[in-house]
This record gives sequence, structure tokens and C-alpha cells, in this order.
Amino acid sequence: MFIKNAWYIAAWAHEVKDKPFARTICNEAIVMYRDAQSGKAGALEDRCCHRGTPLRFGQVVDGGLECGYHGLVFDCAGACVRIPGQAKIPTKAKLRAYPLVEKDEFLWIWMGDPEKADESLIIDYPYHNDHKKWPHKHEVYHVNCNYMLLVDNLMDMTHLAYVHKTTIGGSNPKALVEAKTNITPNSTGLHYIRWMQDCPPPPTYKRAAPSLGERVDRWQEFEYIAPGNIIQWSGALDTGKNAMDNRDQPGGFSLRLFHGLTPETDGTCFYFWSTANGYRQDEPQATLDLFNEISIAFNEDKQIVEAQQKTLEATGETGLVDIVSDAARVHMRRAVNRIITVERAAAEAPQVKETA
Amino acid sequence: MFIKNAWYIAAWAHEVKDKPFARTICNEAIVMYRDAQSGKAGALEDRCCHRGTPLRFGQVVDGGLECGYHGLVFDCAGACVRIPGQAKIPTKAKLRAYPLVEKDEFLWIWMGDPEKADESLIIDYPYHNDHKKWPHKHEVYHVNCNYMLLVDNLMDMTHLAYVHKTTIGGSNPKALVEAKTNITPNSTGLHYIRWMQDCPPPPTYKRAAPSLGERVDRWQEFEYIAPGNIIQWSGALDTGKNAMDNRDQPGGFSLRLFHGLTPETDGTCFYFWSTANGYRQDEPQATLDLFNEISIAFNEDKQIVEAQQKTLEATGETGLVDIVSDAARVHMRRAVNRIITVERAAAEAPQVKETA
Amino acid sequence: MFIKNAWYIAAWAHEVKDKPFARTICNEAIVMYRDAQSGKAGALEDRCCHRGTPLRFGQVVDGGLECGYHGLVFDCAGACVRIPGQAKIPTKAKLRAYPLVEKDEFLWIWMGDPEKADESLIIDYPYHNDHKKWPHKHEVYHVNCNYMLLVDNLMDMTHLAYVHKTTIGGSNPKALVEAKTNITPNSTGLHYIRWMQDCPPPPTYKRAAPSLGERVDRWQEFEYIAPGNIIQWSGALDTGKNAMDNRDQPGGFSLRLFHGLTPETDGTCFYFWSTANGYRQDEPQATLDLFNEISIAFNEDKQIVEAQQKTLEATGETGLVDIVSDAARVHMRRAVNRIITVERAAAEAPQVKETA
Repeated sequence: MFIKNAWYIAAWAHEVKDKPFARTICNEAIVMYRDAQSGKAGALEDRCCHRGTPLRFGQVVDGGLECGYHGLVFDCAGACVRIPGQAKIPTKAKLRAYPLVEKDEFLWIWMGDPEKADESLIIDYPYHNDHKKWPHKHEVYHVNCNYMLLVDNLMDMTHLAYVHKTTIGGSNPKALVEAKTNITPNSTGLHYIRWMQDCPPPPTYKRAAPSLGERVDRWQEFEYIAPGNIIQWSGALDTGKNAMDNRDQPGGFSLRLFHGLTPETDGTCFYFWSTANGYRQDEPQATLDLFNEISIAFNEDKQIVEAQQKTLEATGETGLVDIVSDAARVHMRRAVNRIITVERAAAEAPQVKETA
Repeated sequence: MFIKNAWYIAAWAHEVKDKPFARTICNEAIVMYRDAQSGKAGALEDRCCHRGTPLRFGQVVDGGLECGYHGLVFDCAGACVRIPGQAKIPTKAKLRAYPLVEKDEFLWIWMGDPEKADESLIIDYPYHNDHKKWPHKHEVYHVNCNYMLLVDNLMDMTHLAYVHKTTIGGSNPKALVEAKTNITPNSTGLHYIRWMQDCPPPPTYKRAAPSLGERVDRWQEFEYIAPGNIIQWSGALDTGKNAMDNRDQPGGFSLRLFHGLTPETDGTCFYFWSTANGYRQDEPQATLDLFNEISIAFNEDKQIVEAQQKTLEATGETGLVDIVSDAARVHMRRAVNRIITVERAAAEAPQVKETA
Repeated sequence: MFIKNAWYIAAWAHEVKDKPFARTICNEAIVMYRDAQSGKAGALEDRCCHRGTPLRFGQVVDGGLECGYHGLVFDCAGACVRIPGQAKIPTKAKLRAYPLVEKDEFLWIWMGDPEKADESLIIDYPYHNDHKKWPHKHEVYHVNCNYMLLVDNLMDMTHLAYVHKTTIGGSNPKALVEAKTNITPNSTGLHYIRWMQDCPPPPTYKRAAPSLGERVDRWQEFEYIAPGNIIQWSGALDTGKNAMDNRDQPGGFSLRLFHGLTPETDGTCFYFWSTANGYRQDEPQATLDLFNEISIAFNEDKQIVEAQQKTLEATGETGLVDIVSDAARVHMRRAVNRIITVERAAAEAPQVKETA
């Protein structure tokens, strides 16, 4: 059961070019393409209404996307605009079209009722447009788990001490586990921030910012926006610099991460992420090094959550026990369940058409 | 739901030699072998009646096929003729045998009631026996789709313009799409012929018959015999030669194709096909070149129908829309449904034994 | 439906070291590890009670096995002994622990009610501890069949004439098929012995004991202990040496085989086996050669039973016919069904707690 009335990341904008690009989202097979004239990207169900052939085998032509089997053409709104050898186009010849918006290097898709697709609800992530101050690199992973397991992962940072010992976690589990955490639920999800003061910097930080001293004040700040987006700002400054009052000081370590989790099926998802270098912006190698470090860490997560998925598929959640470090995760799950409940109630309510 | 009382191609005759040869047909696991004395091919269920072991692990011995586990031997009629260490053979020790007939380089199998297996119903394909006039090569593909999707494919030639642009289709979609088509349903399926007059020859034709001019009259003639056989004669003569009145003139292009679709499972099938060179019969290289061209084209089809199968498995046929070029396909589906309905009604009718 | 109240081989003792070792047994995912202090091996369900993560990704630490995700630690009894960042451990935070006993180079696991896990029921196999008289090598195979198909295999030795023609079977199927067999059912399974007198030795025997003559008296003795263990002693002496009265004479061939079949899932199992050289004990190469011969033979069995499994999964056992050589197999199946019936009846009976 996915939240449907929501914007999900369907693709990195550059993934969709002049050829059809297929991706399954929330169990629905979708094909995206850019209109030959306008360059605007569109998203259609990936199933020709003639014989069910996936449109990904077709080609972009004037007027739309041509099916690779018998040549029917569909525009970005899903209308059939050409049937070879036939003048009249039947009314039923059409495809479902999905609202699709390009913003901040992403293509955002709306999986629910198109009438509710309000573009103003799409997250702002201006750092993707500020290549000078936040040089970044991005990636998309295919992960064999329900997308919520990766959201869970990002709601409980104590895992850094166990999963990421040699990368972003570090040699001081105690600091990570006992970090002071402040959680603030809000209307779209929740915000939380963790402070680890007067502790040694983890290996990744040290490699990235060699000027860091032996003791740092370290923060991890997360904004979770349901269903699957997490905006992260993490960093450290030397202890004594009053990082808590001003994190924007030079000489420290600071990165921004965007995590976008999009369900593919009930048991698989896409993990769109970008990492921005906020400490040595003029050094492309530093941006690349950071990206590589994060890649290693995220592949450590991938291994764990894919194994967790298999176990949960076999056994369900019966008997699982919440612990103290689950606080943000529990708030997050509550937010998601609240949205699903509201969405389901609205779907089941008697439909009343407003009259003008 | 497959038609059972029908002859299907089980194998190319040469595939079945002195070793057991296993193939699943209409969801039934079958093993074929040639009797050591007579050389006649037989077909049995591929499951020993002792412990269920597939007989494909056995060997052909005097008297029949020996199970590779405990040595029971079965003859071509399915009777158990030997049990090691045991004189008496229990009445129940027998296997289902399938009528199997070798004809025109094929082994034809009857999947239904053996009493109804009338050999005179097997298709005649004399071209396989006329190597001088119709030199040919053949193949069998395993395709991950229900066999009907490949029959569909062969009932709507407009797909040549989209799937086979660079091979047998050609650069003139308009001609292919607007070809005059004559469909004649008959008792075993249907016949149809398409004429494309005064059009450029497609790349395959041109490569095969360089003497063809810039404009040709082109035909595609199909005889569909249910459940899964299609006999095709395609060709072209220079425009002005009155091809419509006499297709047997020298200097043109002409090929014969046999398409035999045999269900393996509900979602997979075997595609037996042969292609015969009717234009440069004395040149083995021409026969080989034609075969290679057709192979490329059929692999293009394979990719499309396998993708179509996956989509239809996930979504069914709900909402699909017939178009004008579906006419032969619709007739074909009607013929198949008619046969299935009759077969099912007969199976459900009370059985009356005739008295002499 | 597996027998639960029984000792199964979970692993060769040496397989479980200082890292978590995962194996599924009777459809239950289990992780084994050795306690860092005592070296004693323990077995737990392979699912952390926090978020369901498999514990195989964790590490052995002081006090138990640490989960690789958020650091919870569990001791060999399944108790949670540490939760990072949390003083109080909830009562519900515990894992199922399985009785596990190390004996005769095996780790034996009890899959049923722990209160019934009587160590005195574990099979004695002293030959594993007598490296001088019975030098041996061992192996574990993963086989894609229900474990009973391999027990079946070992209850009917006539298969040697067909499956193992060139290894342990030999060129005289008649002798193997007509061997005099004595079957004695007993409380834990059955015993049977087969004698083939005055016959040529099979290839494996001849290669192992070149001093054997052209005619031998040959025996195969099996003790089956339910659910999945078979102790075998096979050998041969030159005809005329009265082997039937005294098998412990020098100059012959003699091997001991342990076969331990442990269900993984309904359709897969582990085949633990060892082979001991009882004829040229001072020659390590002879032990290795024997092991290699048996490996070839067991891989021949593997191919057959995996194919048999697929057929039986598809068709069930309907219509299968028992033959004379099935006698031991039929007794074995009866023993297993008897145990399952008793176990099930006990499980369904009203529970009465004894009062002191």
C-alpha cells in the first residue's frame, strides 16, 4: 500500500532523453520521453492500448511516442494521435498519463489522482542549482527492499557505528549512540538534529577536511518529507568554535545529501541520491572523493537492508521490539500511516462533484 | 487452455536420435527416442512410473528406453517391458504414450485423445522434400511468450514497417500498411493474401535478388492452420510483369516460410521455422544468406513478443483496442476459440460407446 | 512436514568458527557462532528482534553475537544482553535458541521442543574419532531435492547398476539387482544388509584395493536412523575367504560412509557425508582417492534426484508403482510416517503440566 497522492522522483532529469525510458514506479510500468518539439518530458503507462506491447521499444517521432510494434503514436497527454492505415481514432484508444515536472535536476511524478497534482507541493532543493557553493555528484541505485526500509535506515543514525565502522561512522560508537537528538514532527513529516560534541572526527570527515583537529563538534540534521525524501546536512567544526550557534564557519567539514526513495515494487525501490561538497568547493577531486566515500557507505546499507527485506518477507514483523534509538523512525512511520489513512478514507468516501 | 486434439510439431526429425530427447509440450513433460531396431520415433511422458524420475537420464536399449535410476524399460507404446530383479510386471506399470508421426522433416505429436489421432489431418508441406527447387534451412527458437502471440504476429503484416525496418520490412511503411488484403476464413483456419503494387523492394529482397528493379509488385500469402501452423509464400516481381496473374516467373524474389508454433507452457513456446530459397536455388550461399536475414528479423519479433508477454501477464488484455489491421488476427482468434469450444463441449458430453 | 523432535546435523564442527555462520534448517533461518570465551557453539534464529535483520551480518563480541545493524548483542541462550544507548532491556527482547551439541565432528541441532532434547539420543559414530584405523575425509553438498529422496536413494542399492556404472556400481547389474537382502526394522529405523557372492569387483573397489582377485564376496550394510542418517559399511573379500563369517580380514576392500541428510527447505537439503578408508590406512593418497571416487558417484546421484524432485513437484506421486527392490525404502517410509504421526498426535493432545 503506497501513498499515491504524492510527488515521487521518477528519474534524474538527464536520464530521459530522445529515446523512451522505462521505469516501474509503485508497481506501475511507466515510460518517459521528451517531446521532439518542446523537449518537455512526459510519462505514460508503458503498455500500448492496441496489443499491450511496452512502448519502450518504440521511438520518439513528431507528435509523440510511436509504438515499436504496429506504429500507433501517443502524445504526452496519453492521447492516441495516429493509427497507421486508419483515419478514425477510436475514443478508447488512449493511455494513462502521469503528471511529470522537472525541477532541481529531478523529474517528479505524481502517482495518484491527476487533479490533485499540485506542483507547489514539490520539495525545494536549491543546492542542486548552486554548483558553485554546493558542487555535487549524484547516483541512482536499484535496491531490493521496500523503500520504507531505507527511510527507516535514515531515521536511526546509531547504525553508523555498526554498518559504517570504516567510513562515515567512525571509531567511536558511544558518541554516535549517545548523541543528543531533537525530534520535531511536522505536517509533512519530521525534522531531527543530532549533536555529538567533543568527539573524534570519523574517517570520512578526516580524509575530506584534513584541517580538522582531534576533537570536533559534529551534527546530523535531517528533514524527512513523506513519502520518501530526506534532506540531510551533516558536518563538524573543531570543538571550541561554538558550532551549535553557527555552523557556517570556514575550516570545518560540511556536506549536503539528498536521499530520494521511490518504490519500484513492494519489495524493490530506487535510491536517488546526491552529495554536495561544502568544504573544498574549488576542488573537483574533493567532490569526487566525497561521492566515492558515500558510495561505499550506501552499498554497506544496501547489503543490510536487502538481507532485512528477505527476512521480513519470510517472517513479517511479528515480535519485533522498538528501542530508544527508534524514536525518529517511529514518528516517521506514524506520519506515513496517518497520510495513508487519510488518503484511503478519501478514496472510499462518496464522491460529490462541486457545482460551479 | 490449449487445443489438445491437434497435431503439433514436437521436434525437427533429426533432433531425435539414439538418445532420449526431452521437451515440454502443452505443459506436459515428454521424452522422445528412436527404437533401437526400427528407428521409429516414439513419445512418452517423461516420468518413470516407479519413482517419478525423468526418463531423459536413461538410455535406449534393446526393447525400449531404460530408466537411468533403477533400470525399468518402456517401449514406444508406453508398456513397461522389464523390471530388474523382478519377473512379474504389474499391470499399472506403464506410461502415457503420445502418437508421433514423422513427416516432411518434422515429428508431429498428438496431445489429445489418441483414438482421434488421424494422420491424414497432418499438414502437407512438400517443399521440405524438394531440395532442388526449394533449398532450405531450418531452426527452432525457444520464445518466452504464449504461442498465440507469435500467431498474432504473423496475422498482421503491418508490423514489418516498425519491427523490421532494416530487414524484411523496408523503408516504405505506407505500402505495407495500405496493402490490399484479402482474407478467406476456412474450416481449418484462414487464408490471406496481401498485394503491395508499384513499391520499392525491401532491403532483404534487394540483397537476395539484385536483378530486381526500383519498383516491384510484392505479395505476402499466408495459410493459417490451427492451432499453430502458418505456411507463407512471399515474393516480388518487377512492376509491369503482371505478378498478380503469374507469380512463377523467373527474375524475381520468392521465398517460402514454414512457421510452426508449439506451446511449451502457458508463457513459453517453440518456434519451428524453415526458409526456402525460390530464386537462386543453385547457390547455397544465397540460401544461407536468406536464412541469416530471416533469423535477424525473427529475433526482432522475439524481443517484442517476449516484452508483450510480460506486460500481458501483469495486466491482462483489459482495455485493448482492435484496429483495422487486426482483421486477420481477429478471424484467427475466432477460429481457435471455436475449436476450443467444440473440444470442451465434447469432453464434457456424456460418453456413449458405440456398439458394433 | 518434517520430524521436529529429532537431532539433525546442522554443520561440520569446523564450519562454525569465530564468525556467524548461517544455514536454513527445516525452513528455519538459523545462525550459529562460537562463544568468544568458552568456544562452545550456539544456534539462534537468524533474525534480530529489533528490526528483523539477519544476524549473520554481525560479529562475535564479548558476551555474544552483535547485530551488524544497530548493535544489539545476544548470548547463546538467545537472551539480549546489550542494547546500545539503553540501560533497560525489554523482556521481549530475545531470540529463539536451538539446542546444539558437538559430537563426533558434527554439530547436532534439535529443531523441536527444547525440553525434549535428550543428548543421549544422538547417534554414536566413533569412527570419526579413530583417525588411525579409519582415516577419512568429509564434505557437505547442497542438493535441490527434499531430503527424503536421498534417503530413498540409499535404501535401494539396485540403482548402483544404473546410476554408477563406471564408479561404485560396476559392470555386473545382475549381481547388484539380485543381491540377497536382509531387512530388519527396528525402533529408530531399520537395518539391512546385502550380499553379492562370487561376482567381479566394481571399478572403485578394484582401483582402491588392487590385491583383490577376479571374484569377490561383496557386502553393503546399512543402518538407517530416522529422520536422515545412514551409517554404511561396504566391502569385499576374495571369494573363498568366508567373508560372511568374518568381514575383518586383511587384503580386502572396506569403507565406512556416514550419510547425514538435513532438510533445508521442502525442496532442498544438505548432504553431509564422510568416507573412511578401511584398507590402506597408512596411505593418505588412498583416502583421498576414495573420497574422489565417492564424490563422483554422489554427484551422479545429485543429478538424478534433483531431476526427480522437479518432476515430483510438478506431478506428485500419483500413479507410482512399488517394485521388489523397494522393500527397504518402503520400511523406511513407514518408520518416518509412524514418527510423524506420533509427534503430531502429541502436539495436538491437551497439555497437562505435572505437579510436584
